[in-house]
Amino acid sequence: MAKKRIIILGGGFAGANTALQLERKLRRRDDVEVVLVSKENYMVFQPMLPEVISGNIGILDTVIPIRRMAPRTQLYLRSVEHVDVKKQQVTLSPGFDSAATVLEYDHLVVTLGNVADFRQMPGLHDHAFPFKNLVHALRLRDHLIRVLSEAAITTDPNLRQQLLTFVIGGGGFSGVEVCAELNDFVRDCARRYFAIDPDEIRVVLVHDGERILNREMPEKLALYAQELLKKRGVEFIFKMRLQTATPEFALLADGERIPTRTLVSSVPSSPNPVVLRLAVPLNRGRIQSDLKMQVEGFDNLWALGDCALIPNPQEDGFCPPTAQFAVRQAKTCAQNIVAAIDGLPQTDFTFSELGKMASLGHRRAIIRMFDAINLHGFLAWLVWRMAYWVKLPGFDRKIKVGMSWLMDIFCGRELVQTGMDKPTSLIEAHYEAGEMVVRRGDSRTGVSIILAGSAEILSEKEGTDPQVVDELGPGDCFGVTEFLEKSEVKNSIRCRETMDIVVYKKQELEPLLLLPEVRRSFENLRMKNEE
Amino acid sequence: MAKKRIIILGGGFAGANTALQLERKLRRRDDVEVVLVSKENYMVFQPMLPEVISGNIGILDTVIPIRRMAPRTQLYLRSVEHVDVKKQQVTLSPGFDSAATVLEYDHLVVTLGNVADFRQMPGLHDHAFPFKNLVHALRLRDHLIRVLSEAAITTDPNLRQQLLTFVIGGGGFSGVEVCAELNDFVRDCARRYFAIDPDEIRVVLVHDGERILNREMPEKLALYAQELLKKRGVEFIFKMRLQTATPEFALLADGERIPTRTLVSSVPSSPNPVVLRLAVPLNRGRIQSDLKMQVEGFDNLWALGDCALIPNPQEDGFCPPTAQFAVRQAKTCAQNIVAAIDGLPQTDFTFSELGKMASLGHRRAIIRMFDAINLHGFLAWLVWRMAYWVKLPGFDRKIKVGMSWLMDIFCGRELVQTGMDKPTSLIEAHYEAGEMVVRRGDSRTGVSIILAGSAEILSEKEGTDPQVVDELGPGDCFGVTEFLEKSEVKNSIRCRETMDIVVYKKQELEPLLLLPEVRRSFENLRMKNEE
Repeated sequence: MAKKRIIILGGGFAGANTALQLERKLRRRDDVEVVLVSKENYMVFQPMLPEVISGNIGILDTVIPIRRMAPRTQLYLRSVEHVDVKKQQVTLSPGFDSAATVLEYDHLVVTLGNVADFRQMPGLHDHAFPFKNLVHALRLRDHLIRVLSEAAITTDPNLRQQLLTFVIGGGGFSGVEVCAELNDFVRDCARRYFAIDPDEIRVVLVHDGERILNREMPEKLALYAQELLKKRGVEFIFKMRLQTATPEFALLADGERIPTRTLVSSVPSSPNPVVLRLAVPLNRGRIQSDLKMQVEGFDNLWALGDCALIPNPQEDGFCPPTAQFAVRQAKTCAQNIVAAIDGLPQTDFTFSELGKMASLGHRRAIIRMFDAINLHGFLAWLVWRMAYWVKLPGFDRKIKVGMSWLMDIFCGRELVQTGMDKPTSLIEAHYEAGEMVVRRGDSRTGVSIILAGSAEILSEKEGTDPQVVDELGPGDCFGVTEFLEKSEVKNSIRCRETMDIVVYKKQELEPLLLLPEVRRSFENLRMKNEE
Repeated sequence: MAKKRIIILGGGFAGANTALQLERKLRRRDDVEVVLVSKENYMVFQPMLPEVISGNIGILDTVIPIRRMAPRTQLYLRSVEHVDVKKQQVTLSPGFDSAATVLEYDHLVVTLGNVADFRQMPGLHDHAFPFKNLVHALRLRDHLIRVLSEAAITTDPNLRQQLLTFVIGGGGFSGVEVCAELNDFVRDCARRYFAIDPDEIRVVLVHDGERILNREMPEKLALYAQELLKKRGVEFIFKMRLQTATPEFALLADGERIPTRTLVSSVPSSPNPVVLRLAVPLNRGRIQSDLKMQVEGFDNLWALGDCALIPNPQEDGFCPPTAQFAVRQAKTCAQNIVAAIDGLPQTDFTFSELGKMASLGHRRAIIRMFDAINLHGFLAWLVWRMAYWVKLPGFDRKIKVGMSWLMDIFCGRELVQTGMDKPTSLIEAHYEAGEMVVRRGDSRTGVSIILAGSAEILSEKEGTDPQVVDELGPGDCFGVTEFLEKSEVKNSIRCRETMDIVVYKKQELEPLLLLPEVRRSFENLRMKNEE
């Protein structure tokens, strides 16, 4: 008899926990196999991620390897390219071999979370640091160390001000927690290591509500958090949104420009493209599941987690997209799939939220429990840590993480960069009117292509004021002469109307010049530009 | 009175320790400032790096932040572009501003280590993992996890064999230590998590000597290490060199091909380009310093560490390029610079080597001390760990690292990938005659440019054998049609003569098509290719 195959798409809380629960229920059975597809081999405990910034916890302590949770599950570290619910097939991106992998399933569990969606906000896409996974956290940390190092040595007061200003967009859980950790980290570093006066540092939180956490927490707790952060030096700008950003400032909806090199922004999200292409009716961009986690009209298709719209069993409306709900949904889902395979009756999902928490750094937190009890300060922080700790899989890991937390009491911050680079060589950038894009004498600038907006070329002869000699628009480029001649920038470029560009580094384009056709086209471009 | 400025180039053991010693000697003096220029903000403790692979020690425990060692030194996280010893100026790469930084010095200390030099070995440059810094170690670790994950799910026996074979080139200290940790890690993972039989795994060490560590260690100790590794499953190929590598195999000097996706190779190194351009006579590519660390003919130029040729005070010949010597040289150098500033007499360098060590994983090591005593096994490992531990800067760090080592006794291996990507989008690759480069039906291949060698285009009509329809040579390209049409590969490409190519990912080239001239050139290329 052929094995039944259950495929789980997505390795977040919902997906990884479904695998874990299936393994428990299928122990000692070899008639069913479980496959999990995930781009990353770990599950992120999102609320701990901000602490990676400050190095308060071990980098790897915020994440749990999926194999550890579900050792007998076949793990595909791939992305999902296509799902065919009629043929019961899933197509995955190629691995080391170059052909795509096609897998057939008996039951399919969809737990693909939302994806970042910056489409309406090119400036934020280009210049804001996202903050969703471990790589983001490590990259932000590396950047903060670099920014402080440069601030300590620069002699340019404008640059110094940009480098020492940190802007966070969004005052929800993630924004507040990132803000708290970032603020602690930069002030602590400044005090301990650098030629920087902590009073020069600005950490600004921009939020559209009239106080932080206005949607998430009762007023009393939120105001406690707000006062605490204020005392630690955080500035708040309320009832305001981030409009866009350029390399040198953040632009607010009211036109205010905050000079900064560090902008962290909560990210607008949209459904995973695979979910959108699924031949299944969507409700508000989410898959409609019932209390059994089953998708309407299918007996072998299940959806849970952030991508599913599931009735909330305790109150009106739907389950919120939180880890607490995902974990319990996973349990129900695993139970029902095994019941379906065995021809047994199915059970409904029941759960009511335990509580909400936000950590505030320096061993402080706020917690709202059972919709009734408020906790704040050190006690809340302790409860929060314990709540995470009991969930760590494996006794050895519990000891290790527990000890490393204890150790933090004695230890200072570590300032080691891990050397995370952006995986792409293509730099996208956004500029506002009047901003300088490249300056005469620059040696590093590459070849830039204008996607939208316009720029002007300035001629700066010695002893005269800069003169506009030409204009550039979408589909035009600059930097070609300097690229071909390996020279410094001759004419400065200034943004005329809000502009988006994409920049190729010189060394990345170099090999293309080996193709005579392409070399000729660059030479033509250069002649055109110089006319 | 103007401050005197001492500039140290390089942040390895020699450079960072010179800064530390200068800070000690200049305490409470504000007439001298110290500047250190380093690309990384940490100093790597090289011998601990292999343990990052297996996750036996915390990722950040192998490195020491330079600021921690020398908090009052001005740290420039930049690269050195030019040194003018006549004008006493150093030019650094730009930071956040785009202009280069020029600094003047009163004393200059050069400690710029060697750089990797693969010029004669394109295949190794393209396909071997280097192993010199933290990023390399993390990248290799991520790769090993990926390789094992794919091996666990692939159905292709050839691919499985490639994925489960690991080749290490070079049986010196670094090669042996990497081999030991890699072997432990992959076998341990295979045993604990995967659908892989540990017996399928091959770990092969290729070395040009007749035993490992033949230049570094007495025969008895080396043979002990060799037997230990053999027992743990390592294969040795002696009196043999790695010739080159392709994406799918390592090629030995005798023509043997070892199918593998993981090749770690010790790297031939050459002097830092800045050292080569220095207007100072070089001896064997190194700067000639005396026992005072002073460069001949200059009273304000000092050189030490790997880039300097310094007489060995205890025996004939010169100081070996090791951390032990660098640390002591740094002390002498700092002392003599302060003496020079104060007009006091200078002192000579005296030191004899304490010992040599190699760690073998699983709490085993070998040590040769004072050129007289041999230690091996657990005791040697303990001595080795202690020797490192006492050098850790700061009491808090000592406790933290000590505890995390203790914890390892209870803890299993962590399988979390950190998500390190190669910072470049350009992929260089090397192929040997007869190897398939791209296959009909591939969907991911990009645009490839041939740098050297040749390839043939195969036409594969259904029902017939592949036919060679055309040849390609240097300056030719393939993949343009597929790039413009966003289609799968139509004709396979096979390597004809040993070939080096550079590959652009499709999405990286996309924006270039916005430039009409360039789009036209690609369309021309396509027509030419299709003729």
